[in-house]
Amino acid sequence: MKDLFIGVDIGGTNVKIGVINRDGDLILQKKISTRQTGNYTDVLDDMAKEILSLKNDFPEDRLCYVGVGIAGQVNVEEGLYYEGPNMKGWKDITVAKELQARIGIPVIIDNDANVAALGEAIFGAGKGCSSLLAVTLGTGVGGGLVFNGEVFRGARDAAGEFGHTVIKYDGWTCNCGRLGCVEAYVGTYGILRSLREKIDAGRTTSLSQMDFKKIMPKDISIAADTGDEVALEVLRETGEYLGHALADAANLLNLERVVVSGGVANAGERILGPARETAKSKALRVPGETLEVVHAALGDIAGLVGAAALALQTYDKQLSQA
Amino acid sequence: MKDLFIGVDIGGTNVKIGVINRDGDLILQKKISTRQTGNYTDVLDDMAKEILSLKNDFPEDRLCYVGVGIAGQVNVEEGLYYEGPNMKGWKDITVAKELQARIGIPVIIDNDANVAALGEAIFGAGKGCSSLLAVTLGTGVGGGLVFNGEVFRGARDAAGEFGHTVIKYDGWTCNCGRLGCVEAYVGTYGILRSLREKIDAGRTTSLSQMDFKKIMPKDISIAADTGDEVALEVLRETGEYLGHALADAANLLNLERVVVSGGVANAGERILGPARETAKSKALRVPGETLEVVHAALGDIAGLVGAAALALQTYDKQLSQA
Repeated sequence: MKDLFIGVDIGGTNVKIGVINRDGDLILQKKISTRQTGNYTDVLDDMAKEILSLKNDFPEDRLCYVGVGIAGQVNVEEGLYYEGPNMKGWKDITVAKELQARIGIPVIIDNDANVAALGEAIFGAGKGCSSLLAVTLGTGVGGGLVFNGEVFRGARDAAGEFGHTVIKYDGWTCNCGRLGCVEAYVGTYGILRSLREKIDAGRTTSLSQMDFKKIMPKDISIAADTGDEVALEVLRETGEYLGHALADAANLLNLERVVVSGGVANAGERILGPARETAKSKALRVPGETLEVVHAALGDIAGLVGAAALALQTYDKQLSQA
Repeated sequence: MKDLFIGVDIGGTNVKIGVINRDGDLILQKKISTRQTGNYTDVLDDMAKEILSLKNDFPEDRLCYVGVGIAGQVNVEEGLYYEGPNMKGWKDITVAKELQARIGIPVIIDNDANVAALGEAIFGAGKGCSSLLAVTLGTGVGGGLVFNGEVFRGARDAAGEFGHTVIKYDGWTCNCGRLGCVEAYVGTYGILRSLREKIDAGRTTSLSQMDFKKIMPKDISIAADTGDEVALEVLRETGEYLGHALADAANLLNLERVVVSGGVANAGERILGPARETAKSKALRVPGETLEVVHAALGDIAGLVGAAALALQTYDKQLSQA
């Protein structure tokens, strides 16, 4: 019986490979390093070898579909990876076809933020929810939309770029080149800039004793735990910035739930509290009342579980159409 | 054969009633005044009378479903109208049930911006498009989303509020109470405020000769036609503001097309040109490349045709499920 689904999460450093059952339990997980030889076929070969070895762990006829999540721009229907950050030598690759040729199991690919959102929607903090935005806070601010249990990809599979919602017209410069995106305020560099501006303005904080170049959002979070007022303020303002952008998304989409993950999100309610409060109070009445802003449930396996969930969905859909 | 669909567009002043065929041709249109007696049953009675009279115009068995668009917050599934502007005495009314009881034809209701968006999507400037945002420029800035031919309503039928995308963090106060919404800049009062600020700053314009209280966006448009530089600048900036908010929506949804209608939109390319250019250049690469920003095609019958289109869709869906 075909009831096991393989998820692959390709990052610039590692490739994670996992197997889930229909309940979303991650029953096996492997990790290999992403060989940066500049030749993508090396990585595909490594992945194929690991996936083929799964046939020793499970009866082959139970493994039926592979889902791949990868950072960057994809064409889901054609299984094509255009390009993305941190993937040297990966440009315009027919990943699905090439991997499928190596392993003999059908493959579907999608953007990493999309599969992570799907993972949370099907098996995580978005379970049972009809309209979900999953936000990942890190260096960048990623986003993925899931409506009625399916990833919403838009016209050319590029939807979900919540991080590039502008909150300040002439605000800080974002990595994307535009001014004032929420990513410019809530991404790692934005948080550090907030801190820097407060220190430069003469505010007193325990963080001044650190080498500023080495400070990470986690340090701000630790300082906040000790009651450092500047750190607390930075986290609160970060949450408020996030909340403003969430209010826009809530108004446009009347979202049922927003699921927040990522390193910065580990600051917990210190960011999510103000984000929730701001989003709900700044949105219009009904979208504000509807909106829930919650912590992600799957942690760093969201992408892996979500990629496998995409495999599961695709398999079932093809079966029902057959 | 049941092949005619009735659309009803309820506004504060008039109720428009129309009949479309499967090609979206509006083959009959009536207009009655919305009696503001404070008793909604009077309006429902008037509507019912007109709809029943259609049975004289067409064989009864060809009229199969009624779609109603109405300004305000609705519950589509329950056919319930909560409340909205300009509808005195209309609060928590089961419009679908009450109308259906009077006419003996099934009724579905939706928000007016949603049905107008559906009208453009199915029979207007959004034809064949997989992801559409319809924007109406007027006193307010309305919005409706249509994905794969169906209205996207969100968790509680309140999606589409594009007008309340914030473009300036501490910007002008919007009708909704929040600061800096695109409606505060691109709605009628926003446009007039832009003009006012330029006049107050000593700029010379032919519009200074008019009583400012009587100036409407249309006058700015007329002045622009004569080459008035301040008027041209106001329209260009209005377009740019709109474009900034569209870039956010394009990034989040990777929209295929935006259809713009409404009185202000009649200023044409003077607003839409800068809106298009700003949206496409400010959005990320793929969403920017994908996005088309076009003029609406149906004019002021979009709501009527769209309400009938919703009736058509609903009838066909129920038929296929039966």
